[in-house]
This record gives sequence, structure tokens and C-alpha cells, in this order.
Amino acid sequence: MTKPTLPQGTRDFSAQTIYKRNFILNSIKETFLLYGFEPLETPALENLETLMGKYGDEGDKLIFKILNNGLNDAKNIEKAQKGFDELMKGKASVALTERALKYDLTIPFARYVAMNHGQLTFPYKRFQIQQVWRADRPQRGRYREFTQCDADIAGSKSLWNEVEFANIYHTAFTKMGLKDYKLKVNNRKILAGLAEKCGGENLLSKITVAIDKIDKVGLDKILEELKEKDFQQHQLDIVKNYLSIKGTNTEVLANGLAFFKGIAIAEEGLSELAFITEKCTNVNILIDLSLARGLNYYTGIIFEAAAPDTVKMGSIGGGGRYDDLTGLFGVSGIAGVGISFGVDRIYDVLEELNIFPEGILATSKALFFNMGNEEAAHAFTLMQHVRQAQIACELYHETVKMDKQFKYAQKKGILFAIIIGSKEVNEKSCVVKDLMNGTQETINETELTEYLRTH
Amino acid sequence: MTKPTLPQGTRDFSAQTIYKRNFILNSIKETFLLYGFEPLETPALENLETLMGKYGDEGDKLIFKILNNGLNDAKNIEKAQKGFDELMKGKASVALTERALKYDLTIPFARYVAMNHGQLTFPYKRFQIQQVWRADRPQRGRYREFTQCDADIAGSKSLWNEVEFANIYHTAFTKMGLKDYKLKVNNRKILAGLAEKCGGENLLSKITVAIDKIDKVGLDKILEELKEKDFQQHQLDIVKNYLSIKGTNTEVLANGLAFFKGIAIAEEGLSELAFITEKCTNVNILIDLSLARGLNYYTGIIFEAAAPDTVKMGSIGGGGRYDDLTGLFGVSGIAGVGISFGVDRIYDVLEELNIFPEGILATSKALFFNMGNEEAAHAFTLMQHVRQAQIACELYHETVKMDKQFKYAQKKGILFAIIIGSKEVNEKSCVVKDLMNGTQETINETELTEYLRTH
Repeated sequence: MTKPTLPQGTRDFSAQTIYKRNFILNSIKETFLLYGFEPLETPALENLETLMGKYGDEGDKLIFKILNNGLNDAKNIEKAQKGFDELMKGKASVALTERALKYDLTIPFARYVAMNHGQLTFPYKRFQIQQVWRADRPQRGRYREFTQCDADIAGSKSLWNEVEFANIYHTAFTKMGLKDYKLKVNNRKILAGLAEKCGGENLLSKITVAIDKIDKVGLDKILEELKEKDFQQHQLDIVKNYLSIKGTNTEVLANGLAFFKGIAIAEEGLSELAFITEKCTNVNILIDLSLARGLNYYTGIIFEAAAPDTVKMGSIGGGGRYDDLTGLFGVSGIAGVGISFGVDRIYDVLEELNIFPEGILATSKALFFNMGNEEAAHAFTLMQHVRQAQIACELYHETVKMDKQFKYAQKKGILFAIIIGSKEVNEKSCVVKDLMNGTQETINETELTEYLRTH
Repeated sequence: MTKPTLPQGTRDFSAQTIYKRNFILNSIKETFLLYGFEPLETPALENLETLMGKYGDEGDKLIFKILNNGLNDAKNIEKAQKGFDELMKGKASVALTERALKYDLTIPFARYVAMNHGQLTFPYKRFQIQQVWRADRPQRGRYREFTQCDADIAGSKSLWNEVEFANIYHTAFTKMGLKDYKLKVNNRKILAGLAEKCGGENLLSKITVAIDKIDKVGLDKILEELKEKDFQQHQLDIVKNYLSIKGTNTEVLANGLAFFKGIAIAEEGLSELAFITEKCTNVNILIDLSLARGLNYYTGIIFEAAAPDTVKMGSIGGGGRYDDLTGLFGVSGIAGVGISFGVDRIYDVLEELNIFPEGILATSKALFFNMGNEEAAHAFTLMQHVRQAQIACELYHETVKMDKQFKYAQKKGILFAIIIGSKEVNEKSCVVKDLMNGTQETINETELTEYLRTH
């Protein structure tokens, strides 16, 4: 047997990491609940048909597909061969694979709403914290199996939803100690207005794709890219002038209105931004007209959350409004808006800032030493009383030298050693040793629970 | 687009179900922590090589295998064809599939211990609550994707571990309100002694397989099966006499010792049962010599938990001791012992007994009505104060007739409606309507948080 390994891009999480991840996940989950969202869990397996064609050609290739079972049963062989031939021609083959691992949480959410819209109460506000899988090339900070953390609202066009989501970012990041996060907002309607000002709607995707890279490549490269895509000088000037609109939220809104005077779609977008920035007085919200959020399905306000300036790290959250959530599944007229948190990146940020709170690394509070069969039996009974007070503790599994038992307690970060020898059994007492400062005292065994509760 | 569906044997969990499942999962998790176990999470994806050959031929067929990506890239086609041919011959094909979905939590745990044994503190006590996947034929109560809930101890042969596990069942079931559960125990060493008494070790698996079915088919069928497998009359008499040993734990131990006099392995097994039943004074523990736990790797004490007699339901938990946890992965000498909880069955039991506690179905406590733009803005500010006290609440998303807003609150089970019209804005007050009994009162807005906290 060769030494076992993990598949590339996957991870085992041991206790220390789980406690830290849970601190993040619980902060987010508590916030979602506080804002009236309810949980949803969908299976890891979806029908391949549900997922294919929803993430673009590149996405289709990155979906993990499950091989059908029983392919080599006599009655299936011909079918399987046909399926394989289809696969080799680049087609999806139901004969070979009918199921796949979910690629994100949005499409399964849309599938769920489409299947259950008759029973749901709208607006339907759900959150979902689950694993997703992508056959991406693994690299630093990018995994093939990772946790997504989404909240969405289906069936409401109200801008109060966007106000709520901005506040959700604020509440969750503040819970995690990330007070200096930044929440950038823009509106796809403003970008649509920019395309119109440049000459037509059909320019929107070229503009969006280019602008999306401004943080990485800078203004000059963007103008170069647009030039290569046949933008004329007067169009480039419009884009350049647009991207130079900066300042406080009030300034950007005023200058934006001047810039877009008469272009209704952009004026609407700016007015929506005015609404939410006015309502989000406590939130570190920052209108950033260069924010584009790539080539996805957003149609209204878009968000992107960034770590405090002291940490170099890409976005730690993002989202926005999309007009037609379930149209892909044959149910139209349901608007959607949602956000997500980037758990792995937030983890790295908290680690780099060294601000994971103390006390999240749980372990047993006390180790009862094993000083012989009878003593251990006595200790066990006492331990069960302590556990009734919800204090985590353990009995060392075998009678060995005390040194070895101390070492175990130390390695596990246990705070107290409870030592009960034959003398203590007779006297109904126990020795409590504080393993942090080395002091010890003998107390009556009836006092032990209270002692551990208060120390 | 056809109406979307879920893959057979998988489920969406909506909020109500998640809250009930979480009640069960949290009861178990809190118990594991109380007993000094630490969490572990392993990926859904494992290398196919890690899983194949560990669950028998039947198990191998039920493992969900992931199709490699990029099979139809020009450079891969020849390799893929070869892999497909291998697959059709019933061989595992790395060219076609390198990865698989995990089938249980024990093999990934063994793989983890084998990979990390140099860094772990032994005894290593871990719990793991994660999804597993099996390509079983779906049927009532059996799913293709389901949650397993395991705790194991690696690196200790002490019987105190078995005592702890028996108490873990007791603590967790008691937390869930299942006081009348039953915990059956037996010892594989006793079954080995029975094989010896019948004429040889090689009879053990035949005996185990037969006895395992006694609850379902009864004694006569078992003796018939053994007769078909060439058991002679004197051997059948031995098995029959063995299975007639019943009564209190003390009686079974005494009669067992008499029955097995001189057969060392059985005497050892009985003495181990004596140790743990003596230590488990609070636990509903019941020695059942007919307990066998199928054809698996157990070598010592085995457990099986059953629901209260009033519910017809198979086992709701089980486990036992296995001698060599990591030998399959090239690391020998690490003993293991562990248990698991059957979450889906426990869910059905609590549902049938109707004992899910009230108050586990969380929802917002208050709905702030939307009575117009300015009123909503005022309500929003007040709501953010209430949320700071960790009280979940919502603002209705749009200004519509109050009827519609009441209906939303009612459907979601929200307890209080907070109504702030222009009069209340001016007076800095709010109307609080109790939606359970229909009463309402007007209070000062500064009193609202305290009101909601205490009502």
C-alpha cells in the first residue's frame, strides 16, 4: 500500500482550523438570522442538466461530473460505449454521466425556488452555507472543494433589500473584528448609461470586461484594450472622463449626475445609489464607478467588499441584483438580489491581522488522572457530575506515570489536572492542579464542579 | 427548459427541517465536546485508490466515481479510450476516474490518522459530522446522500473508552428526550468463543452472518441457514443453547461464564462486558448475546442503540472496537474504537414520538411594517437598534396594504408587528401588536428593545 494522499485542491480541517472557520461561519450565520433570513440546504449532487450551460463554456468544463454506476453491466455496455463516443466529441452524455457536483449555490437556489415557488412565502429570504466543487487548476488560495456563504432574496424589487445587504456586511464584519472593511458599490444601470453615451448598448460587455480589471492593470491598459476593440478616441475620452469621477459619495453622485445628464438609465442608477448610501449611515460604503463585477448576470446595484487597507487581498465578498432568478428553469418574473462572503480569504485576513479572538479554541477544561483501577472508577463517577454542569472533561485512558498524563494535558491545552489517589478517595477530596501557573490545592470533591465553573 | 428535478435519493432541506436536524446534530456535537472529542473534517473527494477495496465488492460498486476532466482534449483521447476499455472489463480506471465521493467517515479518518500520526496526540479522540454518498437503490429512509455522525478514538486499548462511548449515547439521547432508548452490547470475542466451541475459528463469519438476522427472521430460520451451511446437529444445539442465554446483565454474565467454561477468548469477552456494565450504572445498557453487527471489522465490544419500544425502527446507532485502524494504509499498531448515530432514523423517531422541543424553529421576532418611505426610514433606524440587542427582525420590503404585511408575518410565524405611521414618527412612539393573541399597545420607541426582549 502506498502512502495515502489527498486529491489536489482539497483539504483536511483539523480542530484548530475548524474552530477558526466556525468563528467566521457563525458570525455570518448569526447575522443572516438577525436580519430575518432562513437556512436552506441543497444536495451536493445535482442533475447534470440542471448545471450545464449556466456558467458559460469555461464553467461547463470545470463542473465535476459523476460517472453513472453499473456501466459495465452486460445490459449497459452498448449504451455506455455510445455515451463514451459522445463524450469524446465534447457532448454531455447522459449514458455516461447524469449527475454532477454543485458548482455554486446560486443555480441550486434558483432550481429550488423554481421547484417550490408555489409553497414559498415571498419575498423568500434564504441563506446557504455549503461546499461547492470546481475542477479549477489548484493554486494558492484557490481550492477544488470550498465553502460558499450566500444570502439572497427572491421576489422583491425593493431597494430596502440592498440597504439590508449593506448592513449585513457591516454587522458581520464588525462581529469578526474587521471594522475597517470597505464596501464598494456601483450600479450596472450606470454602466449601461456609459455604454449608451459611448454609442450603444452593445458596448456594455466590452466596457464591463475592461473596467473590471482597473485595480490590477490601471487606466492606460484599459484604454488600450478598448482601442483594440475598435473604440474611437471620443469614446475613449468618455470612458476616461467617467473613470475620473471620484471623491466622497456626495461628490460622485453630483458629478455623475452632471456627466450623465439626460441619460435616463444612468440617472436611475445614480438615484438608487443615492437612496442606499443615504440609508446606510453606519456602513463603510463607498461609491466606486469603476466597480464592474465581471461578466455576470447583474442588472442593478452591485457590491464588492474589501479587506482593511493594511492587508493585500482581493475581494472578501460581493453580490448584487439580478432581474430574473428562475427564468432559466421556466419560471419567470422572480427578481433576485444577493451577496456572498469569501470564507477562505476572510480566514487569511483574520490570520494576517492576528485578530481571531482568544477562547475560540475549545478543549477539555480538566483531565482526571488515572491513578489505578479503583481510583479511576471513583474519578469517573465524579467526572460525570462535572459533565452534568456542561463542563468538558476527560479521564486519562490508562494507569501510567503521571509525567505522561501531564504531557497529554499540556499537548491538548487542558487547563486543570484533577488528581485522585487512594488517599483522596478515602477523604472524598481531590487535588486540583492549575496547569497554566503550576499551583495546586486540595479541595472537597463536592466543591469541584463549582471550582471548575468559576476558575 | 423542462421542469427541474432532484437526483434520485437526494433531498433539499428547508428551514423547518434544518432546525429539527440541527437540534439532533447539536445535541450529539455538544455531547462529543463534553467528553473531550475534537472535530475533524475531511473532503468530500478522496482519491479513488483510497476507497476501493475497503468496503467489499458490493461496496466498490456503490462508490460514486468522478469523471476526470478534460478527457476529450486532443492529447487525452487515446488515454481515455484505454481507460474506458478497462472500465468495461470491470477494472478501476485511473485514466477515466481518479477521484470518488466518500462512502463513510471511517476510511477517511483512517487515511487522516495514517497521514498525520506523527503530529497527533494519542489517544486521538475525534468526531466528524459530514455527508457521505452511496449509489444504493433509493428507498424509504435510505438516501444516496446522507449525514454520518461518528466519534472514534485511535491509539488506545483501554476499556474506559467503551465506558465513555456508552455514556455518550446516554447523554446525547437524554438531551434529545429519548430517555427510554436501549443500548445493546455484545463482544466479538464471545462470538469467536462460540465458533471455537462449535469446532473452529473458520465458522465465525458463518455464525455472525446468520445471527445478525435474528431480530428479522427468528431463531428457526437461523438454524436452517446454518444447517444449509453444513452445521451438524451438535453444532446447531450449541448455537441454540447459546442464543437461549437471556435475562438481566448479571444473569447473562453468570450463565455465559458457565456455558463457555474453559474457552479463554469467550471468558475474556464476558469479563470485558462485566467491566463496562458495572461502570455504566446510569446507562440503559443491556447485554444481548445475539448482537453481531454484520460482517464488519469489529474485534471486541460492539454496540447497537435502539429506539424506545413504542417506536418500530431499526438501530439508531452502533459501533464497536476494531483492532487495526490504519493497517490498510501502511501504519500498523493503532487500535480503534468508535460509534455512530443514525441521524435520519433519529429524526423519524423524534417526529413519531412528537418530542422535538418547542422553540427550535427560529424566525424573526418582529416585523416592522412599511407605512411609506419616510416612515420606513424611521422604522429602519429603530430596527437597527433592536438588532444590536441580537433580536432578529425585519422591515417589510415595500409599502403595501397592511393586510398583506400581516399575512407575511403570519406565514413566517413572526410574533410581533411593529407599526410606525406618521403619527408615531412625530410622537417617537410605535404600536406593538402581539400577533398570537391580537392585543396591541402603543409604547415609546425607546422602550421597544426592552419590550421585545422581555415578551
